[in-house]
Amino acid sequence: MEKVILVLNAGSSSLKFSLFADAPDGPELRFKGQVEGLYGAAHFVAVDTAGQTLGERHWSEDDRLGQDRAALHLVEFLRSFRDRYQLLAIGHRVVHGGPEFSQPALIDGDILARLEKLVPLAPLHQGHNLAAIRAVAERAPQLPQVACFDTAFHRRQPELAQLFALPAAITGRGVRRYGFHGLSYEYIAGVLPQVAPEAADGRVVVAHLGNGASLCAMAAGRSMASTMGFTAVDGLPMGTRCGNLDPGVILYLMDELKMDARAIERLIYKESGLLGVSGISSDMRELLASDDPRAALAVGLFVYRIGREIGSLAAALGGLDALVFTAGIGEHAPEIRERVCRDAAWLGLEFDEAANAGGGPRISTASSPVSAWVIPTNEELMIARHTRQALAPT
Amino acid sequence: MEKVILVLNAGSSSLKFSLFADAPDGPELRFKGQVEGLYGAAHFVAVDTAGQTLGERHWSEDDRLGQDRAALHLVEFLRSFRDRYQLLAIGHRVVHGGPEFSQPALIDGDILARLEKLVPLAPLHQGHNLAAIRAVAERAPQLPQVACFDTAFHRRQPELAQLFALPAAITGRGVRRYGFHGLSYEYIAGVLPQVAPEAADGRVVVAHLGNGASLCAMAAGRSMASTMGFTAVDGLPMGTRCGNLDPGVILYLMDELKMDARAIERLIYKESGLLGVSGISSDMRELLASDDPRAALAVGLFVYRIGREIGSLAAALGGLDALVFTAGIGEHAPEIRERVCRDAAWLGLEFDEAANAGGGPRISTASSPVSAWVIPTNEELMIARHTRQALAPT
Repeated sequence: MEKVILVLNAGSSSLKFSLFADAPDGPELRFKGQVEGLYGAAHFVAVDTAGQTLGERHWSEDDRLGQDRAALHLVEFLRSFRDRYQLLAIGHRVVHGGPEFSQPALIDGDILARLEKLVPLAPLHQGHNLAAIRAVAERAPQLPQVACFDTAFHRRQPELAQLFALPAAITGRGVRRYGFHGLSYEYIAGVLPQVAPEAADGRVVVAHLGNGASLCAMAAGRSMASTMGFTAVDGLPMGTRCGNLDPGVILYLMDELKMDARAIERLIYKESGLLGVSGISSDMRELLASDDPRAALAVGLFVYRIGREIGSLAAALGGLDALVFTAGIGEHAPEIRERVCRDAAWLGLEFDEAANAGGGPRISTASSPVSAWVIPTNEELMIARHTRQALAPT
Repeated sequence: MEKVILVLNAGSSSLKFSLFADAPDGPELRFKGQVEGLYGAAHFVAVDTAGQTLGERHWSEDDRLGQDRAALHLVEFLRSFRDRYQLLAIGHRVVHGGPEFSQPALIDGDILARLEKLVPLAPLHQGHNLAAIRAVAERAPQLPQVACFDTAFHRRQPELAQLFALPAAITGRGVRRYGFHGLSYEYIAGVLPQVAPEAADGRVVVAHLGNGASLCAMAAGRSMASTMGFTAVDGLPMGTRCGNLDPGVILYLMDELKMDARAIERLIYKESGLLGVSGISSDMRELLASDDPRAALAVGLFVYRIGREIGSLAAALGGLDALVFTAGIGEHAPEIRERVCRDAAWLGLEFDEAANAGGGPRISTASSPVSAWVIPTNEELMIARHTRQALAPT
């Protein structure tokens, strides 16, 4: 009988999961999958590491599963393996740990109440995360659950990196730069000593470029600054999010276009970024394959803004030793990596075209003063590790 | 009889003016002054270059002059010098030239109508500027008036530096990064070949640090990027403005604090920045003299954000050759200059402490790869020059 940890990642309309065995050298993936379409026509599928489907189910269009029933379905699904797996705990990705959580937290009633209070800081996401946690806590109150926060890795940034120039009355409500993608950055910080030992103790900018995208400045593995701010809409342009935007634009949208908060939210979260600029797609692969000048403009803006923010983060670090690419675009779009690296030549980065075409891991020349790397991220593994650590030794 | 040009700078509650003689080598200041308290208890004063008061007047608390009557008062005041000065034209500082004006414009009915259409882009300022222009045009329709724009110098920035990652439907309404303080930057670009000839053709960041504050990246005197965006509230923290702010914060203020557009506008324009963070003052001199830790925090944030933005602008330039300080804080706060320069050491700036204490102009060591300078700005002179140029030769 193998002890296992279930990792849950609750999104706005899907619940992704991974099952890790509690192996002596750390968590080992056994299977993974997702429940999609939580608000109609849900579809569950689980596949093992060989790609074989272990389970699948469809729900009707009228059946709105929600995060709670989806999570309970997964717990039920695991029972069908009860002669093989013993579930030790569930680890959850939780988007927001607020100002206080700089570490994962073993969930109890008190912790859950404190996490509920953070919903106003991430109204679009935090509720989904907590719904799954609550559903499991009610059905299986003895099962340990661990909250792993996307913000925690950044909580020890210098105060000035976290502060907006707003009155203390606003800042005191928790309005500060949190930064996100922290589990990804923490994973990268953890593997850097093996992959790029000469950079691990230095000044590193990690580019987590996926449908959501941000950069993190690390000094010796510690977060010093990041591009995302109070919310995950700030910083770089993303698939559908605008990134950095003059707050005066929001006033203009209110005054001149009579947009309310929900319309503005839809605009800046769902209709902007690569999709908004190109008018074509939020998917970098489609844009790179397109010969429409609007696609080229969107890609150009993405690359340009990354270059500007690398400069800003290099300033936060007092210089740069290495640049790391990760996540979907970072791992799989050599053209984007090349353009970003060439724009960073002024910092001392000598790009290696052949190495980049081959996928790295090192994509700078051997003599480059600033090295560049491609390192696949693994947020689920990070959550599994944290969850294991949060439990008493078994 | 001397030909003269009157320069007007209409603010939210004051009208500043300067009178320049049309001398062979360019405009020469004759006197200057202001009308303050335009909405009650107005006070006019004019002083010559020796500091002698040439005229003064007080209005009652109930008498709301406005920009229009203040401008007409100045024209009347000049008539008392009609045996000495012949007024050639009036040059106006106009905050917003929109997407189209990349040069000063000699005002006629058509230009005025086009400028009126830009009021939604700068609702707090553009109206004041145009009120003064209209009042003079009605009283003295034959007198040439020239609009000099704070945005014009930035209009030839690369497209990507001006673009927000918003849908074309929004961008097409003129929602882009304009940048401001353009008359100041243009003045600095004009004197760089004399003051710092080795930097003038290179990559220069100019720090215009006053009650309003921004940075401009110039390549060979041409604006390539700046920190202010669609409005003058973006970029660096300022006396009372927040600078760069996650747009998600505005949604939070609407949703959680039930703030409307006017309350948000007041917060981010009037109650934030140095004043908001310190809770003490918007005046850098007071903050530097204070031993309150909140004052130190506000100053620290100001310096930190300048350092981050210098990195971002160096990226826009592909490196940095020189850094120039100007405007109130830039010219008169050696402590701020020192801290900014020391933070920029990673870019190759070797700071010269003695030269900085002496006020420059050069405040980097002779061997510093990146030079640093203090250069007083003169926006009024720039307006006078533009106004003279816009007239046919007399």
